Amino acid sequence: MHSRFRTLVHNDHFLKLLKNQKFRFISPELYDTSATAGRVITSKAAVAWEAGKPLVIEKVEVAPPQANEVRVKIKYTSLCHTDVHFWEAKGQTGLFPRIFGHEAAGVVESVGDGVKNLKPGDHVLPVFTGECGDCVHCKSEESNMCDLLRINTDRGVMIGDGKQRFSKNGTPINHFLGTSTFSEYTVIHEGCLAKIDPSAPLDKVCILSCGVATGLGATLKVAKPKKGSSVAVFGLGAVGLAAAEGARISGASRIIGVDLNPKRLEEAKNFGVNEFVNPRDHIKPVQQIIAEMTNGGVDRSIECTGNINSIISAFECVHDGWGVAVLVGVPSPDAIFKTNPFNFLDERTLKGTSFGNYKPRTDLPSVVDMYMNKKLEVEKFITHRVPFSQINKAFDYMLRGEGLRCIISMEE
Amino acid sequence: MHSRFRTLVHNDHFLKLLKNQKFRFISPELYDTSATAGRVITSKAAVAWEAGKPLVIEKVEVAPPQANEVRVKIKYTSLCHTDVHFWEAKGQTGLFPRIFGHEAAGVVESVGDGVKNLKPGDHVLPVFTGECGDCVHCKSEESNMCDLLRINTDRGVMIGDGKQRFSKNGTPINHFLGTSTFSEYTVIHEGCLAKIDPSAPLDKVCILSCGVATGLGATLKVAKPKKGSSVAVFGLGAVGLAAAEGARISGASRIIGVDLNPKRLEEAKNFGVNEFVNPRDHIKPVQQIIAEMTNGGVDRSIECTGNINSIISAFECVHDGWGVAVLVGVPSPDAIFKTNPFNFLDERTLKGTSFGNYKPRTDLPSVVDMYMNKKLEVEKFITHRVPFSQINKAFDYMLRGEGLRCIISMEE
Repeated sequence: MHSRFRTLVHNDHFLKLLKNQKFRFISPELYDTSATAGRVITSKAAVAWEAGKPLVIEKVEVAPPQANEVRVKIKYTSLCHTDVHFWEAKGQTGLFPRIFGHEAAGVVESVGDGVKNLKPGDHVLPVFTGECGDCVHCKSEESNMCDLLRINTDRGVMIGDGKQRFSKNGTPINHFLGTSTFSEYTVIHEGCLAKIDPSAPLDKVCILSCGVATGLGATLKVAKPKKGSSVAVFGLGAVGLAAAEGARISGASRIIGVDLNPKRLEEAKNFGVNEFVNPRDHIKPVQQIIAEMTNGGVDRSIECTGNINSIISAFECVHDGWGVAVLVGVPSPDAIFKTNPFNFLDERTLKGTSFGNYKPRTDLPSVVDMYMNKKLEVEKFITHRVPFSQINKAFDYMLRGEGLRCIISMEE
Repeated sequence: MHSRFRTLVHNDHFLKLLKNQKFRFISPELYDTSATAGRVITSKAAVAWEAGKPLVIEKVEVAPPQANEVRVKIKYTSLCHTDVHFWEAKGQTGLFPRIFGHEAAGVVESVGDGVKNLKPGDHVLPVFTGECGDCVHCKSEESNMCDLLRINTDRGVMIGDGKQRFSKNGTPINHFLGTSTFSEYTVIHEGCLAKIDPSAPLDKVCILSCGVATGLGATLKVAKPKKGSSVAVFGLGAVGLAAAEGARISGASRIIGVDLNPKRLEEAKNFGVNEFVNPRDHIKPVQQIIAEMTNGGVDRSIECTGNINSIISAFECVHDGWGVAVLVGVPSPDAIFKTNPFNFLDERTLKGTSFGNYKPRTDLPSVVDMYMNKKLEVEKFITHRVPFSQINKAFDYMLRGEGLRCIISMEE
């Protein structure tokens, strides 16, 4: 079945070149991508052939980037719940075979026609949503929900020509979220790539390309708690802890973590969480418990579970007069939010956010800078590391609820 | 039944004094209130003896102001839906006899112990909600929902000692909203009185003390539309038209009025409304009609009806990415707001406001100044005028849906 593989010679040549450099701090000009640019290359990829079945490391063909596209060599990727959700494909019409992965960091290998802002050697974070720069959303100061490149979990093809760039033995393999980072090489629309400081360590900042930025931005860009304020965070997974980290950075004095799992508490303390509520410990609704703890409600709340009851609690637990609740967690499609409208009339605010309201290209580089300037702590989110060959272990960790982020090293 | 009336001599004396002055521009120092201060005075008042029955102009006794209270001579008052709602008392446990009225303007007659910021002669607007200055809400930059003096429609007594200041033949008469402005003289907590520019014409700025400020603030202080933006206003009564006036002042280019009554359109044009949607003209939901008119939704919407379906439409008609909906209208107590939570996750915001987020004492004087500086147009809200003796006509106009505001002149 490998008979139709193209030779790996170009790819190997490129790998050797890269390995001979002190990669992380290399100047982009030192890359010689002339050997691979414009050609189909062979790449190791973790292919999901069927819903819920372990990924298989395969050698796949990756076509060159077309207009406005960039081929990226992924250096590190990590696993996010969204990958697992669409890999499990429960209750969905799954799209298989597919290459998952969207939280990652890499280096530009080559660019297609019309790419203006990236060149080979640039360090990039792929993002599941994009920024075309031209639509009403991109031109709005407030929105990051690009009309062209907004998240689309159903699309398995590139937006330019409706085709896949991955194939094996002539069989196309579907993309995921326009990123498909569980591959050594992947093709991504230019608008979904944030160019970052080349001195930033890719094995750490890769987790800023989805979950951590989502939670952090929900606090820093949307909820905006003041110094000394109280913040409740619902759901203490990576996104929720990133929201707590945002509250810590903002100088919130009370950061109340809400989670059904009491084991989360110890870990959460590292992210500034200094009080903990387990809804299972109380007969009263959690919003009432929080209101009693805080003399009327918290100043801000961030909901990171997507559970509809948690969404309602997160709204109803904020203080009247000034409380703001921010929704981050993705609910089931048939969920209905219900509340007494007087909760709004008493001057509470409810808003939602996608990707922490960060515009991928405009804002994400500054999130990397926050890490480089030691304002944002990233290492504490990284609880596991595996080589690419053991990517299924990362799925196991997540399915067992172990740890926060597992970094998958593509070159090991 | 008049045998137990105190003599009117003090009151008449005071009235003569006032009538001999060019009242509107008089310096406060010219008032001599020494004759009435500290004494029970007799005052004409429109008393609601029973739910839904015409008010009766009576001579009532008005006790002197106690600690932190102010006795105010009302010059002009107007009628607001809230008065009518609690006068009709449908489905409520009515509190009668009662003196209604809360939208008004007057002059301080005397002050009780501990009153720091007002003195006889000051021109004031009474407000149905207050600003004690000391609670967490008053100390918050964002809230105007004073813990002590927040609107309370059930209370018929003064907050200081739990007693009424009005009586007739020894029978106490209940207060309404802490203001009871359908009386020549009334007693009000200092925190519910905004001291305003003494040169402002009281027969006009009286309507800024409730409905107009409520709608105006909902737009200017809460929705904050940008110049050139689109704003939908649900409900084109006085509050909704004040919200539209706020949009006009903000420079909104599209102001879409939504009302079931097609007659509202012509009037609404004077308030900047330049497009009109009557939900009865369409089979599709009004939020869909508005989204189609505006390429995805309006930038801001202001809901001024309180109807729960209108509340849901007002939220769902704002643009994803940046749309903000503001609730002003008061729904029925058992209404439930329902929406798909993805409407929030697509970066829409829903908030509510009371009294346009204006802090009564701190902010209302500047609303009067907006009128004095010709930025805000007030005259167009005033469609009727009646002397106090014909106050029931004002109720008739409102019950028939005629006009916007009827000014009741206390001295005619």
